[in-house]
Amino acid sequence: MRTAIATVCLSGTLEDKLDACAAAGFDGVEIFENDLIASPSRPEDVAARCADLGLSIDLYQPFRDADLVTDDRFADTLRRAGHKFALMERLGARLLLVCSNVATATIDDDDLAAEQLSALGDAATGHGIRLAYEALAWGRYVNDYRRAHRIVELAGHPAVGTCLDSFHILSRGHDPAAIAGFDPERIFFLQLADAPALGMDVLSWSRHHRVFPGEGDLPVVALFDAVVASGYAGPVSLEIFNDVFRQSETRRTAVAGLRSLIALADTTAGHRAAATRTPGAGDVRPDRVGLTALPAVTPPTALGFAEVKTSGNDHLERVLRQLGFGYVGTHQSKPVTLWQQGDARIVINAQDAASADPLISALGVDVRRPIDAADRAHRLLAEAVPRTQRVDEEALTAVRAPDGTEIFFCQSGTAPAWAAEFHHDGRSEGEHPGLGIRRIDHVNLVQPWQHIDEARLFYPSALGLTRWPTLDVAGPTGLVQSQVMSSDDASVRVVLNVNPRVGGDAPSASRPEHIALACDDIVLAARAACAAGIVLLPIPQNYYDDLQARFGLDEKTVAQLRELNVCYDRDEHGEFLHFYTETIGELYLEVLERRGDYRGFGAADAPVRMAAQFALSRAPAAAT
Amino acid sequence: MRTAIATVCLSGTLEDKLDACAAAGFDGVEIFENDLIASPSRPEDVAARCADLGLSIDLYQPFRDADLVTDDRFADTLRRAGHKFALMERLGARLLLVCSNVATATIDDDDLAAEQLSALGDAATGHGIRLAYEALAWGRYVNDYRRAHRIVELAGHPAVGTCLDSFHILSRGHDPAAIAGFDPERIFFLQLADAPALGMDVLSWSRHHRVFPGEGDLPVVALFDAVVASGYAGPVSLEIFNDVFRQSETRRTAVAGLRSLIALADTTAGHRAAATRTPGAGDVRPDRVGLTALPAVTPPTALGFAEVKTSGNDHLERVLRQLGFGYVGTHQSKPVTLWQQGDARIVINAQDAASADPLISALGVDVRRPIDAADRAHRLLAEAVPRTQRVDEEALTAVRAPDGTEIFFCQSGTAPAWAAEFHHDGRSEGEHPGLGIRRIDHVNLVQPWQHIDEARLFYPSALGLTRWPTLDVAGPTGLVQSQVMSSDDASVRVVLNVNPRVGGDAPSASRPEHIALACDDIVLAARAACAAGIVLLPIPQNYYDDLQARFGLDEKTVAQLRELNVCYDRDEHGEFLHFYTETIGELYLEVLERRGDYRGFGAADAPVRMAAQFALSRAPAAAT
Repeated sequence: MRTAIATVCLSGTLEDKLDACAAAGFDGVEIFENDLIASPSRPEDVAARCADLGLSIDLYQPFRDADLVTDDRFADTLRRAGHKFALMERLGARLLLVCSNVATATIDDDDLAAEQLSALGDAATGHGIRLAYEALAWGRYVNDYRRAHRIVELAGHPAVGTCLDSFHILSRGHDPAAIAGFDPERIFFLQLADAPALGMDVLSWSRHHRVFPGEGDLPVVALFDAVVASGYAGPVSLEIFNDVFRQSETRRTAVAGLRSLIALADTTAGHRAAATRTPGAGDVRPDRVGLTALPAVTPPTALGFAEVKTSGNDHLERVLRQLGFGYVGTHQSKPVTLWQQGDARIVINAQDAASADPLISALGVDVRRPIDAADRAHRLLAEAVPRTQRVDEEALTAVRAPDGTEIFFCQSGTAPAWAAEFHHDGRSEGEHPGLGIRRIDHVNLVQPWQHIDEARLFYPSALGLTRWPTLDVAGPTGLVQSQVMSSDDASVRVVLNVNPRVGGDAPSASRPEHIALACDDIVLAARAACAAGIVLLPIPQNYYDDLQARFGLDEKTVAQLRELNVCYDRDEHGEFLHFYTETIGELYLEVLERRGDYRGFGAADAPVRMAAQFALSRAPAAAT
Repeated sequence: MRTAIATVCLSGTLEDKLDACAAAGFDGVEIFENDLIASPSRPEDVAARCADLGLSIDLYQPFRDADLVTDDRFADTLRRAGHKFALMERLGARLLLVCSNVATATIDDDDLAAEQLSALGDAATGHGIRLAYEALAWGRYVNDYRRAHRIVELAGHPAVGTCLDSFHILSRGHDPAAIAGFDPERIFFLQLADAPALGMDVLSWSRHHRVFPGEGDLPVVALFDAVVASGYAGPVSLEIFNDVFRQSETRRTAVAGLRSLIALADTTAGHRAAATRTPGAGDVRPDRVGLTALPAVTPPTALGFAEVKTSGNDHLERVLRQLGFGYVGTHQSKPVTLWQQGDARIVINAQDAASADPLISALGVDVRRPIDAADRAHRLLAEAVPRTQRVDEEALTAVRAPDGTEIFFCQSGTAPAWAAEFHHDGRSEGEHPGLGIRRIDHVNLVQPWQHIDEARLFYPSALGLTRWPTLDVAGPTGLVQSQVMSSDDASVRVVLNVNPRVGGDAPSASRPEHIALACDDIVLAARAACAAGIVLLPIPQNYYDDLQARFGLDEKTVAQLRELNVCYDRDEHGEFLHFYTETIGELYLEVLERRGDYRGFGAADAPVRMAAQFALSRAPAAAT
């Protein structure tokens, strides 16, 4: 499978974009006209640069308002096309994208469209150029890929073929199955884009919210399967209009794009067939990435540990003890300590810590075959985490999640080998009866808004987690977008929170991350923690009044929850009870009890929590 | 007219919100349930705080899923309502918003709705509470205000009335005219919200994109006129769900909200009738703002000057000379100089300048009655600009636009009185033949994204400018949203640009503002400027190749434009030719010629300009 990407996907100058495409490992590019027009490089220079970088120019685009026009207007179509053909010759581009007419079409007639495309094809042939005709989702008359392809077949011109674009097809809810029956020689080009499910007009959706395949909600895999089934062997190209990509770091976006194609090729059942097919067209070169099957995703079985980075924080250690965690030991070669209760392990790492304020720096994900999992993640272009260890120490492999969190792949099992590297220093510990905490239920990570789309693909493709629908949570300083990622059996859950884009005179607020710990009995745990002197986040009386109204809980139950600052949620599957510790730097801990088959996270309580945290962040004296 | 605002419009804690509402000058508030639930203040404390602040609690909201349900479910409606009535008594709130049922309604029957509302009304009456029934735009069965009002009339219960919400009515395109015929005693509450024209599902539109009246595109004035015609004399309340407001500075948003009501009252023909009507309900108090007619807007006749702030910049002065500006003089009492050509005046102000990099700090807007214009702006809550002047100097009044730019109201006329305060210091000037520059055509100001909605109301309400539809311009580091504001005769034009919200690892780029100067003959002006040694922004050859393709210009014309780095646009009304100077700090100058009745700004050229500026900003050596 040969990979390509449209320059419009990326930020920066045309030169920046080409460099980034090559550095990421794409085989080719689509040159977006506006990028060329704004570039000081002559077309010949661009061609030379692409050649130097090993990039083919697979498409020049777009050419608009070509077809279904009056004779007068069509004369102008040919005049304009003549300029573009001359330009493309200088550029060495041999395929032009012709969009179905949006603005100037006045005649609704397939025969005329075929006739005009043929005439345009005749003109193109003289320049060694071919035309890929695409149905825009908002084309005046032609807005269905099946109709566009019928027109191409009617034209029957060797230089006129179809361009398929997954967004234009899937955004209108069109079934891509018909593609499988297309003559692959008539499919000149394939553009892929995904998009989140948004209820908005297709044009705005397309112009601002496209994302890379797998980052959105469209059935791109089904479409790609149909294309592969047709026998198409041309480039698979990304064409993403996205407001965030336009302002993000160019090379990083390019890598994310290629990752999406690697993941797609791995996901789709047909990718092997495509990879082994003999290329049809003469100018198809072998792909440079060598897309082959990745090691199968090995479903994670647990969050084996969470690592917190701090240069040293007595407050955190005190809270851990108050929650019944025991100090296991200090690492034999690093300034790292291990704390444990049940299967919940928290590692406190002082290596290279910039601050005493704790933050979540790494997660241990238990998998059955760590080496395969790491290999898979690396081949999905995840950044490797450099790590030193002594020869007698467990070799752990880690990659960086899009937000920078290190993900360690650990061997599933109750007694992790690496834990043996921690040695108790003999300090006096007293009793650790524990609070009945069993495991890490989930971890909540704050995401930079620039990278949430990457994260939406990373966790499913690298860790086999499933994305839930996103949820907006109203905090006192803005809406927080919450994205749950969960393994199918809910043994590994990560909640990604995208905070509002703050700037200017917006009020500041701490936006802490947290580690949530599952326990057997929330009331016992809360009582024991309070007996140990813990300071919990105070939940307002008004919240408990509302609990009664919402759920009809009896007064005694509500009084108990209120006394212990325990929050409550319920759905048709079960109940959820939880309390929050005070905030320590950028971190807090949550203890929870799930009853029945409740699978949520108490989202209704999050605004109350955030308001309480916000108020305390402005009056720190009141928190102690 | 009594004014109110829902606490959900604002950021921060409930306590912050109440303080901000009172400080802005609102008469009352709607307490949004989630704000109360998240507050540590008891309802009695909130009531006391409101009383101290002089705020009435005009509404408690929302109560959901009440009506069109089975008997079983309705029993739960009454149970839940009982809790809320008790709470409202503690809060001293006497009106509850009942939303038409979205989630649990299963019976489509007006009679049942009326019956259930009556039963709820009976229960409310015992607590001295009334119910305002509102048709949500996405209500399961009731989603039209006319149907909701029919149900209220069917109920015929003294404690059951209608709540009108402009968003729910206008977002569905419903004609508000029927409101004028409603019995005003049956309208219990009025909520106003505007919204930009967006093609998206009504729920998302409502939850994220509402704005204050006048900041959006909905016909709120027509609706308000109908409400006033009905004889309604209750509070006029703002209920805005807006992602940006949620994260903006609380007090500033509250002031913007009250401004929108002042502007609305001024706009609508019916406001006098409403102001003089005798209040019907016993708890209606006179409004504290004293909404009365504002001085009529006096249409601006010219941008009399643009002021640039810099601690001193030889480069800027050199460019002005190269463009044919003459030094007029230095201010008699301030470190300020005046430069002029035709009626284009540029003031360079070194007072309190933080940097040598020039930025646009003030605009002179010529109006026929400056005192009235300033009075109008002040009464629209525009911030006054403190200004010192000697007794013998012209008293100019200025207000601050939402982005901080100072707007001076100057007397229309060709010889501004304040110009006499500038005295030539006798320095040698040489000849100033000029370049045929006549006037300031427009000024382009970069807007903080938090304040663009305010600006959308400020320029029309304070200066009488008309908003054009917004436009997205693709720059190399993100989309720029461009908003033109123009007087009807185009004598005053301001272009507001909202730059992408940059953060994290996004590439940095200078995003300059500019002053655009209209000249008689762009070719003569460009030649003369070049002869004077000016450095223009280089426009790529590829742009000119495309010009030929787009417009069919002849080669000689294109060659001339290319030689002079002049850009070209054309529409059905005329032509637009313009060139850009190099960037000086955060500023550049544009010289343009309008031919025929072209009214645009060459938006198609903006991406090319931005790419060239971006490339130069990274390679400053190349710019000199």
